[in-house]
Amino acid sequence: MQNVSRSKADALRPIGVFDSGVGGLTVLKSLLAALPEERFLYLGDTAKVPYGNKSRETVTKLAFENLLFLLERQVKAVVVACNTVSASCLDLLVDAFRIPVFGVIEPAVEAAVQTTRNGCIGVIGTRGTIQSGAYQSALKARDPALKVLSRDCPLLVPLAEEGYADHQATQLILQDYLGDFISTGVDSLILGCTHYPVLLRSIQAVVGPGVTLVESGPMTARRVFESLKESHALTPAPGSTLSDSPHDNGSEIEIPPQVRYFVTDDQPRFSRVAAEFLQREIGRVEVVRVVS
Amino acid sequence: MQNVSRSKADALRPIGVFDSGVGGLTVLKSLLAALPEERFLYLGDTAKVPYGNKSRETVTKLAFENLLFLLERQVKAVVVACNTVSASCLDLLVDAFRIPVFGVIEPAVEAAVQTTRNGCIGVIGTRGTIQSGAYQSALKARDPALKVLSRDCPLLVPLAEEGYADHQATQLILQDYLGDFISTGVDSLILGCTHYPVLLRSIQAVVGPGVTLVESGPMTARRVFESLKESHALTPAPGSTLSDSPHDNGSEIEIPPQVRYFVTDDQPRFSRVAAEFLQREIGRVEVVRVVS
Repeated sequence: MQNVSRSKADALRPIGVFDSGVGGLTVLKSLLAALPEERFLYLGDTAKVPYGNKSRETVTKLAFENLLFLLERQVKAVVVACNTVSASCLDLLVDAFRIPVFGVIEPAVEAAVQTTRNGCIGVIGTRGTIQSGAYQSALKARDPALKVLSRDCPLLVPLAEEGYADHQATQLILQDYLGDFISTGVDSLILGCTHYPVLLRSIQAVVGPGVTLVESGPMTARRVFESLKESHALTPAPGSTLSDSPHDNGSEIEIPPQVRYFVTDDQPRFSRVAAEFLQREIGRVEVVRVVS
Repeated sequence: MQNVSRSKADALRPIGVFDSGVGGLTVLKSLLAALPEERFLYLGDTAKVPYGNKSRETVTKLAFENLLFLLERQVKAVVVACNTVSASCLDLLVDAFRIPVFGVIEPAVEAAVQTTRNGCIGVIGTRGTIQSGAYQSALKARDPALKVLSRDCPLLVPLAEEGYADHQATQLILQDYLGDFISTGVDSLILGCTHYPVLLRSIQAVVGPGVTLVESGPMTARRVFESLKESHALTPAPGSTLSDSPHDNGSEIEIPPQVRYFVTDDQPRFSRVAAEFLQREIGRVEVVRVVS
């Protein structure tokens, strides 16, 4: 019985989600849609953003610090809502921690493999993600016959964050970045950075309607749902088994709002950009220090 | 006599220069031109770049860490080749340390006041620099009758670093950013970020030939020269008093190349971008850890 009670208490714990900044909110949006009963802690490491241009060693160190911050707040699982971290050190994180850790690369790869008709898949992302070769090798591991083209697009994150998603300048830069994908007949393009869904319209306009854009958010959310369900770690719907759950001494896990937002640097614009990314107001943002 | 010898040994010590990344190299370029006998240590905090979107508190902490790193390497003076740091905490640094610390804002303000004919001055910079109001108040302190217009231009740093200085997209974004300056009759525009001299041609094309662009590098270099000269801390020219200098126990200060480059994150592209910014090859770059 001890085990069952323990499991019910665990099920009430929040899910941690972290990113270098605001980009991971596009993944959180999918998580909120797929897991409406869950509570979330979102950590944006705004003091260290961007991760995309940093070395693997630095990114790994930052990822461990973020994960420890979330673990101290009793999360039951962590979603690494950042392609750069997923590409740099996901295996290390999965191996190192007891709770399940989910990345965003494998889900996007799965979605792209299901989507492509001609076996020619494109990947765009930050410099760190693309140089790591993580997408390229995950795709090849699934099917060595796939033709994979990749390109780093370092200007897209600042353009998305500065509200230039639909600006003509962004279109011109996208033409630069995406020209090769169009000419080589890619039929599915993985948006390998959590910021890119904000640029969806502009990217689609440049690549044309024949190319399917693949986001990692929806498939990641489905995987989290399935994994938690399998391990009986989903938060029960209101009115179901909730009243059976044992009283818990740690008041830390009894958090009223569905999402608590933490940032490592106080930036008034986080709330504004977050509202755009999530397409809803986010309320209070807590500034915290994350240091090893 | 002890004092005189000490002063000669001090004069042989290098000058420290730091920035959040590669931008400060435009200032280093001016320093190398104005102070050809000096040796320099350049620190680019590439693990934490960019500073421009971070809070004042975070920027101050990072600035202290960088300064301590340079002090440990026996510098005789430090140039804060970063507008965001100069705007956030220069007074604090100047007061806190024994060696002279130079910022880039006052020199640019002095140059702009000398340049303007109609008393209408524009300032562009990162979000942090502009929101601090440092340029605006420094200009008003010199002459309350000056009309000052300012605008943060957060996309210009990534555009400069990504080699888009002369791209049509950059021109479109500059038209967005600089429209108000043109319509209000600004005749001098301070480039309040050390990256912006790289965009000089594009900025000039957008504002037109009637607006004088003001960089901080040359005037900063002149101030450093004058200050070191006044305190007899300039490195003597070869063949002059060098042979009189006492033997020094700290071999740390006997460094052969004119500039040693340190970065906090290993980025192969630092050398490439640096060569563009400095307009010469920079040789070896040392990766170091700067942590308090």
